[in-house]
Amino acid sequence: MDAISIIRTKRDGGALTPAQIDWVVDAYTRGTVADEQMSALAMAILLNGMDRAEIARWTAAMIASGDRMDFSSLDRPTTDKHSTGGVGDKITLPLAPLVAACGAAVPQLSGRGLGHTGGTLDKLESVPGWRARLSTEEMLDVLREAGAVICAAGDGLAPADRKLYALRDVTGTVESIPLIASSIMSKKIAEGTGALVLDVKVGSGAFMKNLDDARELARTMVGLGKDHGVRTVALLTDMSVPLGLAAGNALEVRESVEVLAGGGPADVVELTLALAREMLDAAGLPDADPARALADGSAMDHWRRMITAQGGDPDAPLPVAREQHTLTAPASGVLTALDAYAVGVAAWRLGAGRARKEDPVQAGAGIELHARPGDTVTAGAPLLTLHTDTPERFEDALAALADDAVAVTPAEGPRSVSPARPSVVLERVD
Amino acid sequence: MDAISIIRTKRDGGALTPAQIDWVVDAYTRGTVADEQMSALAMAILLNGMDRAEIARWTAAMIASGDRMDFSSLDRPTTDKHSTGGVGDKITLPLAPLVAACGAAVPQLSGRGLGHTGGTLDKLESVPGWRARLSTEEMLDVLREAGAVICAAGDGLAPADRKLYALRDVTGTVESIPLIASSIMSKKIAEGTGALVLDVKVGSGAFMKNLDDARELARTMVGLGKDHGVRTVALLTDMSVPLGLAAGNALEVRESVEVLAGGGPADVVELTLALAREMLDAAGLPDADPARALADGSAMDHWRRMITAQGGDPDAPLPVAREQHTLTAPASGVLTALDAYAVGVAAWRLGAGRARKEDPVQAGAGIELHARPGDTVTAGAPLLTLHTDTPERFEDALAALADDAVAVTPAEGPRSVSPARPSVVLERVD
Repeated sequence: MDAISIIRTKRDGGALTPAQIDWVVDAYTRGTVADEQMSALAMAILLNGMDRAEIARWTAAMIASGDRMDFSSLDRPTTDKHSTGGVGDKITLPLAPLVAACGAAVPQLSGRGLGHTGGTLDKLESVPGWRARLSTEEMLDVLREAGAVICAAGDGLAPADRKLYALRDVTGTVESIPLIASSIMSKKIAEGTGALVLDVKVGSGAFMKNLDDARELARTMVGLGKDHGVRTVALLTDMSVPLGLAAGNALEVRESVEVLAGGGPADVVELTLALAREMLDAAGLPDADPARALADGSAMDHWRRMITAQGGDPDAPLPVAREQHTLTAPASGVLTALDAYAVGVAAWRLGAGRARKEDPVQAGAGIELHARPGDTVTAGAPLLTLHTDTPERFEDALAALADDAVAVTPAEGPRSVSPARPSVVLERVD
Repeated sequence: MDAISIIRTKRDGGALTPAQIDWVVDAYTRGTVADEQMSALAMAILLNGMDRAEIARWTAAMIASGDRMDFSSLDRPTTDKHSTGGVGDKITLPLAPLVAACGAAVPQLSGRGLGHTGGTLDKLESVPGWRARLSTEEMLDVLREAGAVICAAGDGLAPADRKLYALRDVTGTVESIPLIASSIMSKKIAEGTGALVLDVKVGSGAFMKNLDDARELARTMVGLGKDHGVRTVALLTDMSVPLGLAAGNALEVRESVEVLAGGGPADVVELTLALAREMLDAAGLPDADPARALADGSAMDHWRRMITAQGGDPDAPLPVAREQHTLTAPASGVLTALDAYAVGVAAWRLGAGRARKEDPVQAGAGIELHARPGDTVTAGAPLLTLHTDTPERFEDALAALADDAVAVTPAEGPRSVSPARPSVVLERVD
């Protein structure tokens, strides 16, 4: 068994054997296969694909490279959610305590943001005192106390994926459905959840720009979950405009707390409830009523317990950026464009995200929206407000929003009826 | 300019701009672009190709990464030959002194063997005392003294290619026509020859297994040579059976000396003369007569001067392997198969070649053929003799020759006429 013959097999369009996959993933994790060999293989996989059997074995080999967690000592079913990443996607924050309030346990291992999509851990770290890094024992304690825990994955979970993900990031080999699916699912399966709901984003602000690619990714991941005994379902959801009215760390925590308090933007509430119902169904709790848990304060109660159990103060004021700049409508009319990718890049440049893994993020930076596509606006009314501690970044952020990213079209004559907002959920894959 | 966006351009099927090519080749040579990034790019180039303008720029960037040699101080035209590598391909050895004897200067920078094809320097090092490594000044002295020099390329010549070649070797990215063509031509153009003849091998023992690929490689290289002002022509030649009757280092030197003495196998003589005529034509010496230079001893005289000028003793006995093993014909009939690749691998396993760059080779190891396809053989007659210093390798070598690599077909009835041997030269590309 050697790396070159394995690379050649995939390069020439062949299928890798189970033995080849086991060997190369293990040898790469141990350092016997070099980075330059794995990146050539990753490019061959990106361009020539892997079939379902190969993807399943690749995922299994990445799981086998490390530890598997076990929540069988809990007295309730476990269920988790994973989003492929979007702009303003704070759904995990209200969702985890909401599902916990309905009777399931949510052991969520999350990541930090890279590029224009934010990371759940970065968002929660804007809550004063909150800690992302927990031992396995602490994680179980928080789960028992609050029903939900959101924390960083330990180094022992799928180390092959950790190493391969960092390599793909610098070698132009991120955008491969087999590699994306096996990366996500190896971590989620090793995490030991019994049920899993995937939120696969589609649109300019997502990795998957069109419905066909998103559907293929969703089907691949649902298949992998089922092969490993995890009850898995996916929703394809819209990411052509930002989710809700805030993109940024503390700004998104604030909006999440509004949702937990029974308010918040309609699309965020809709998606939170849709994902909660899927998670509870998959966990064997189809009769739970997440809408009531939002209305009666029990979801908020679980949020406060979860934040407190991880060292955070749910009553402390959230950080606010030092400088603001507001864009206003140039004319009266209808907001016809608000591009998710442009808003994501602008928030990132303001300091909400990081260019490199080791960069810090600004807790208060980001973008607050005052209108959404379809809304009627009058000349001079605020469209969006930019927040940052470093005002020299306004110019870069505004450049991202130029061209056709934000557009107001003059309304011709009196508008009779505002068009119905389309649902954020596009399709379901199970 | 950054590596990831360049990788993505090629990955997604686009053409690299001249600025992208210049940047990435330079940055890789300096170490700013990492091995794992260049190997991903090499795989994308292998799978998605490069157009003629990209290949030309890539070659120019590799030439610009180092020094260029200059032979304008010589009083005769320079002309060189490059072979893409085959089994038993010792042609450079008789060819360089032969062309020198006809009035041209032959400054040949050669390599060592890797895999189943031998390297010219390894072969010449079996001549006692002979040195492959010369300074530029020594190289010019040998050229003036003998008209021909065969030596190792210095570190300053196309260092980008040196680094990229070593990387491709371990990442399954060797078999790309744009990368093979730019690698060969960057070294030959930097070497400063005025004319160049390419011997592009086709068949089981060559890198190019079929005529279409060989033709495309030949056309690409001829175009690159002309773009850089080098008069370039290519011959496509057969490599489905070994060249001549010997594969191995000292064994091939012995056969080369036989050719220089006016004897030797017909196919080796044919190809040596065909390449000599092309080299002399390209050098502007169309009236030279290489057949006479072989017959009148002047080619042998130049060989002896060249070997002596590089420290070798042309009269010293050549090394002989300690052990021999002979395969005989199992029945009377016609030798119908003698596969070049199988013979190459067997010779390699006997110690004539190396598995890794740092391995030594055995001077005496290799394979001596006693018959060629089309020859009539009687039961028990010798077919080929294996030579090695390490007889424990006989088993591995014989395994390479099993199956249908060597086959004798019983002759049915009396054979009237032996079929004419086909020419070793298949096509000419200019």
